[in-house]
Amino acid sequence: MTDKDILSYYERSTCSVQWLEFNRALAAELSAGLPPEEIRQLFRRIGERVAVALPIERCDTVEQLRAGFNSRWKSIDWGFATLQEQSDHLGIVHACSPLAMAFGPDATDWAGGFFEGVYQTWFAAQGTPADLKVRADSSGADGLPQVVLRLERAPQ
Amino acid sequence: MTDKDILSYYERSTCSVQWLEFNRALAAELSAGLPPEEIRQLFRRIGERVAVALPIERCDTVEQLRAGFNSRWKSIDWGFATLQEQSDHLGIVHACSPLAMAFGPDATDWAGGFFEGVYQTWFAAQGTPADLKVRADSSGADGLPQVVLRLERAPQ
Amino acid sequence: MTDKDILSYYERSTCSVQWLEFNRALAAELSAGLPPEEIRQLFRRIGERVAVALPIERCDTVEQLRAGFNSRWKSIDWGFATLQEQSDHLGIVHACSPLAMAFGPDATDWAGGFFEGVYQTWFAAQGTPADLKVRADSSGADGLPQVVLRLERAPQ
Amino acid sequence: MTDKDILSYYERSTCSVQWLEFNRALAAELSAGLPPEEIRQLFRRIGERVAVALPIERCDTVEQLRAGFNSRWKSIDWGFATLQEQSDHLGIVHACSPLAMAFGPDATDWAGGFFEGVYQTWFAAQGTPADLKVRADSSGADGLPQVVLRLERAPQ
Repeated sequence: MTDKDILSYYERSTCSVQWLEFNRALAAELSAGLPPEEIRQLFRRIGERVAVALPIERCDTVEQLRAGFNSRWKSIDWGFATLQEQSDHLGIVHACSPLAMAFGPDATDWAGGFFEGVYQTWFAAQGTPADLKVRADSSGADGLPQVVLRLERAPQ
Repeated sequence: MTDKDILSYYERSTCSVQWLEFNRALAAELSAGLPPEEIRQLFRRIGERVAVALPIERCDTVEQLRAGFNSRWKSIDWGFATLQEQSDHLGIVHACSPLAMAFGPDATDWAGGFFEGVYQTWFAAQGTPADLKVRADSSGADGLPQVVLRLERAPQ
Repeated sequence: MTDKDILSYYERSTCSVQWLEFNRALAAELSAGLPPEEIRQLFRRIGERVAVALPIERCDTVEQLRAGFNSRWKSIDWGFATLQEQSDHLGIVHACSPLAMAFGPDATDWAGGFFEGVYQTWFAAQGTPADLKVRADSSGADGLPQVVLRLERAPQ
Repeated sequence: MTDKDILSYYERSTCSVQWLEFNRALAAELSAGLPPEEIRQLFRRIGERVAVALPIERCDTVEQLRAGFNSRWKSIDWGFATLQEQSDHLGIVHACSPLAMAFGPDATDWAGGFFEGVYQTWFAAQGTPADLKVRADSSGADGLPQVVLRLERAPQ
């Protein structure tokens, strides 16, 4: 047995069996009925609603934000985030969410939309200036079960 | 504490917390974007796909069918069904599914569509004649967490 | 289908399938190896440790206590409590815990011990006087999936 | 974020939150009250009972056995096994079980006892000769979340 067998077992376990087949069927219906960009927007709006339903308390530091985010994610078994302050942006890596397993191979881009919606809404509620936007970085995942995002000033 | 408090606690527990807020948000997006009948049809097609993903072995009796259905439902925590042979139809009552909790008050009709899709597909795979149709009976639930359906000859 | 079928389905669902057979086997080993009163004491000590692991914030009212208790219980899917102030005691009813399903028919008395340990430890941490004791009231359950306890002055 | 953070998140997720604190408290009580070898024997007997409660159909090949074992483990979220035929023994590696997370650092040896009990009972029910014994190989795990066992002729 290898690390890869074990990681693969764990990845399958990320999505509750109660919703695995339902979500796979929903994904097939969405893919058949809507263009990819519209599905991505749908997931973004779902993410915005989820962020409103699971609000974060007022935080004063990046570390408090990380703890607040992860307390919410932990309560619903949605993996966890790390935050990294850079000179020109804040890096967000969200790992072990059930989205990839739930919605199958097409979901990479949908997951990006979902987490953009969630984190943008959470940052806005903290008073983050409106010209700072959360964007998923599609080049970032490298085969790991994670979504890489950045909070940064949107290009003019 | 009353039976009602207890039943209400159990009903909230039917939907995995992992997907509760996601599904509620999805429901809000669907309700905002599609007419009710189209959502019902979407859930029907999702049900058809779920039935294909979770096939039932060939059964010779109604009791075997009931056991086959419930073995699948049990494996994904989706409640259970009872079947009752009547002179002119087969009654199906599906109780304790997570659909009502997952999708909120609008979901009664969607759940009807979903289970029509699942049971119709399972019966067809057993060789049930094509003019027998599964229909949700909207008048049937009486406040209990259940969906009432009938397999019967479709009116000409 | 009756209310009773539905309630019975829900009761079976209270215990995570991951630990059902393990706990049933543990119960059989305990019953075979220890007298009932020692098992009850073991569950009491387990309850004390669980209460320490899941502490409650300082509360000023019975309603805050109820909310604090239930926030902890909800986070681990262990049912919920109601509190009722009486002239000479505080009544506690804990419903829908997984203990009865997990440990089988012998567990009624063990569950009483477990919840005595939990609630006694939580009340003590709130500064409740040491002569007030939590006792399970074995006559109280009436077939409902609940444990009835009282916080009251221990007889001299 | 590294592979190690992700693996560590997954390992914490192996044990249902419903039983994590209960099992941790049980482990503390067992460690305080019984010598290690008796706890190991208790876990072995619990494993025997779990194997009887979750029987395997008659299998004709090692591959069928593997599939039969894993179907049972999957139904209760207890990880998975691989089997490897060697010249003088059958190697069994069981990965991703919830035991390590549930019972804490002391549980490595207890887990060995539990899986000896389960696999010995399953092999005996298949008609495996009585002088073939399942033994946990304590040297085997290398920091991975797995238990290594062997089915082999017991030394005289």
